[in-house]
Amino acid sequence: MTLSIEELAKHCDASIENGNSSVSIESAADIKNAQPGQVTVLSDKKYQKYLADCQATACFISKALLDKGAPENLILLICEDPEISFLKAVTLLHPAPEISRQISDKADISDNAELGSSLHIGPFASIGQHSQIGDHSEIHANVHVGNHVKIGKHCKIYPNAVIYDNTVIGDHVTIHSGAVIAADGFGYKFRNNQHIKVPHVGNVVIDDYVEIGANTCIDRGALGATRIGAGSKIDNLVQLGHNNNVGRNVIICGQSGISGSVTIEDGAILAGSSGIADHVTIGQQAVVMARSGVSQDVKPGTQVWGFPAKDRKTAWKELAALSKLPELIKAFKILQKQVEGLAEKK
Amino acid sequence: MTLSIEELAKHCDASIENGNSSVSIESAADIKNAQPGQVTVLSDKKYQKYLADCQATACFISKALLDKGAPENLILLICEDPEISFLKAVTLLHPAPEISRQISDKADISDNAELGSSLHIGPFASIGQHSQIGDHSEIHANVHVGNHVKIGKHCKIYPNAVIYDNTVIGDHVTIHSGAVIAADGFGYKFRNNQHIKVPHVGNVVIDDYVEIGANTCIDRGALGATRIGAGSKIDNLVQLGHNNNVGRNVIICGQSGISGSVTIEDGAILAGSSGIADHVTIGQQAVVMARSGVSQDVKPGTQVWGFPAKDRKTAWKELAALSKLPELIKAFKILQKQVEGLAEKK
Amino acid sequence: MTLSIEELAKHCDASIENGNSSVSIESAADIKNAQPGQVTVLSDKKYQKYLADCQATACFISKALLDKGAPENLILLICEDPEISFLKAVTLLHPAPEISRQISDKADISDNAELGSSLHIGPFASIGQHSQIGDHSEIHANVHVGNHVKIGKHCKIYPNAVIYDNTVIGDHVTIHSGAVIAADGFGYKFRNNQHIKVPHVGNVVIDDYVEIGANTCIDRGALGATRIGAGSKIDNLVQLGHNNNVGRNVIICGQSGISGSVTIEDGAILAGSSGIADHVTIGQQAVVMARSGVSQDVKPGTQVWGFPAKDRKTAWKELAALSKLPELIKAFKILQKQVEGLAEKK
Repeated sequence: MTLSIEELAKHCDASIENGNSSVSIESAADIKNAQPGQVTVLSDKKYQKYLADCQATACFISKALLDKGAPENLILLICEDPEISFLKAVTLLHPAPEISRQISDKADISDNAELGSSLHIGPFASIGQHSQIGDHSEIHANVHVGNHVKIGKHCKIYPNAVIYDNTVIGDHVTIHSGAVIAADGFGYKFRNNQHIKVPHVGNVVIDDYVEIGANTCIDRGALGATRIGAGSKIDNLVQLGHNNNVGRNVIICGQSGISGSVTIEDGAILAGSSGIADHVTIGQQAVVMARSGVSQDVKPGTQVWGFPAKDRKTAWKELAALSKLPELIKAFKILQKQVEGLAEKK
Repeated sequence: MTLSIEELAKHCDASIENGNSSVSIESAADIKNAQPGQVTVLSDKKYQKYLADCQATACFISKALLDKGAPENLILLICEDPEISFLKAVTLLHPAPEISRQISDKADISDNAELGSSLHIGPFASIGQHSQIGDHSEIHANVHVGNHVKIGKHCKIYPNAVIYDNTVIGDHVTIHSGAVIAADGFGYKFRNNQHIKVPHVGNVVIDDYVEIGANTCIDRGALGATRIGAGSKIDNLVQLGHNNNVGRNVIICGQSGISGSVTIEDGAILAGSSGIADHVTIGQQAVVMARSGVSQDVKPGTQVWGFPAKDRKTAWKELAALSKLPELIKAFKILQKQVEGLAEKK
Repeated sequence: MTLSIEELAKHCDASIENGNSSVSIESAADIKNAQPGQVTVLSDKKYQKYLADCQATACFISKALLDKGAPENLILLICEDPEISFLKAVTLLHPAPEISRQISDKADISDNAELGSSLHIGPFASIGQHSQIGDHSEIHANVHVGNHVKIGKHCKIYPNAVIYDNTVIGDHVTIHSGAVIAADGFGYKFRNNQHIKVPHVGNVVIDDYVEIGANTCIDRGALGATRIGAGSKIDNLVQLGHNNNVGRNVIICGQSGISGSVTIEDGAILAGSSGIADHVTIGQQAVVMARSGVSQDVKPGTQVWGFPAKDRKTAWKELAALSKLPELIKAFKILQKQVEGLAEKK
């Protein structure tokens, strides 16, 4: 998609600082790689050093970052929030391709499924008994939707995702390929030298505007639901165990593992490869830093690090101290001898 | 499914302490969330505090936990093993739905596959050359079963699981969606600036009553088999490398990674996100605690923690000591000065 | 496949030390498990102890390892590089089964896809608009290939892998089951109490001779490509985030996680469950040891360990020191008292 500078400025909340507003922009790129014909963005001081050599035709920029020398021929698009303006530009310049809105005759749809309008159902998708798919939703190739599943409107379920029976999914939910929603949780009772499976008769309930990454697993509740609140975003290869209760706008980064019966309150962030033990509560807006393992409740608004995770600053102090420990041990031995010497002199 | 208190007591090894044995129970719930019409369980002292306000109609409970005040109208179901009695009740009240026992005409089954009786084969499942599926097994939608695979009786292979060639699976095995059984192990020899692939001509052998979680990967042996012993249970997103030998009744929790040629003896437990290095042996009943990385053999019956994992108590002592280290460094400097002072006075 | 000793020696760059060159070999096994009729290998001193009791009919061995007593009836195949000779023998004795080279009439192939010759396309595979598949490539059952995808020659895409739109794949690339190539990266901007998705309009570019493990996820670039260089090998359940740039002949072991905009230079090795933070560079031939978390650039040729990862030797010194810390704390208290005593005596 090609747009003029004028159109870009208009649709992306920017004003043109200098340059010809009829110049064409064809695509978007980051400030290091942008070429003539492209628009880029400068939203962070640490990239300001790239501005002088920027090859782009135009650049979204905030007034605060303007002072340092941009190339003369770079058209500046002044805006309040360059990240968001640029994001809008990317979306306009690189529109998502229209997909054919049709129901493949190679899909397997049960007679009593309730299908909305304007659906896309890909080849080899299967939709079970008594399941509902809301208007404008996309069920891509090889997706399996179980029985008694409810999927809302404007959802996108990418190829080879699996949604087990009784799952409830809101509107505008995106589920990437290979994600498995509502398989049994992992629970056994050991009796007479065998593991007896705990039946998992609960389900998974996913609220509006949730996005779930590729090959992520969200287990069904044993009794009751595993819940993901509205607007929460879950990355790839995450394990979310049975009966977890994830709040609204929570961020869970790749390869994190959340055991079971965990509460993650609104706006909390779990960085990559973090882990949470059973029955723990992560407070509102709390941050679990990357690769941390949490075994106790985390207070709202705090940041924890390490394993077992503790207050970030405390953990870092310990880490800094540890790096001094080999020297300390040497110094201690010297001091011991010195004290020995003093004692002998007595 | 609705059952009377009398039926529940009879089928779940309980006796009715008080209350009307003809009252109906419709479903099961945990003690915090149970409502009238539901049965719950009290099996652990730490939940005893919820008993007084319990809204359930009935509660499985052991005599040992009886003394503290249950609500007058709560029907008590006295039993030896409340967890197991409740588990039976859940299974009775929430029976797994009958699936249609039929072979979809949308599946792709090779001419020479040997199919048992009472099978379910879902749409878009494919079954390769010379493979066998035992009686009463379920091969769900989009499952791929390779060539020369043997699957026993009463197995459940959930949608989109993949079973590569030559895999051997016993009876009553459950494999969840997205699990990949018997892909090539990860092995290369570096020669002349390229990685030469080690051929993987072994297979995977899974014994009876094994359960394998969603998106878990079990690699085939390079030579010989990767083995999973009877009754072992493996959670989601686990990586089990080539030529591992997993014993009976082993528990491997989510996101654990077992490199290759590892022996895990009977009854060992690997908690979540644990990792085991090549060629290590984990002894019988040993426990590898969560997020631990094991690089040496673990003795039977012991518990290890941390990375590199060591005896749990030793590791915790070190951890406790580490938390005192920043103060120790300060105190050491003071002591140094003090000793300096004493030395000068001499 | 059965071969005579003479044939084996000839095809596997070995000379026969003793024994009858017409004896038949039927299969290959490791030195501990090999039986009569099998060939094995001794390539590492630490397995030399198994030589005396070796039951194999023949053994690839280097001259350097010859001195210690092999059984009299063991035919020795002397060679320069026993690992590679044995690898060739395994490939000859256990040839990969021929797959039917045909395009299943149960696949769904768009009208405008460009298909090479000698293809295998399995049942329920789907190939999108304007996509190309090169000669001799295999697209197995239930694989989904999106629109505008280019796949080179001699590629193997195993069942249930998913390749999103616009991916570019070279020749001789292997992708195992459940891998998801080019799903959206994980990026949001938080504004007005909601996470706004960063559009991902880039793609994934995979060069020749790359192998990608089961259930691994490689995200598309936000702008521009996520790249995997020629000859690189990626294990199972790896997360490779948006805009990473992986060089040639890189090794990434199972369950590793690479955030985003990371550069991994040629020949680097990431051991199992390692993690790399955003924007980090891992230098040529550098080694990130197992379960390490890297938050800063790693210099070429160095080895790092721990979290946050540091020079291996430094990290191990700290670890060794930590194990002495509980004793140090006790000794410190004693020393403190001693000094107190000395001070009082003054």
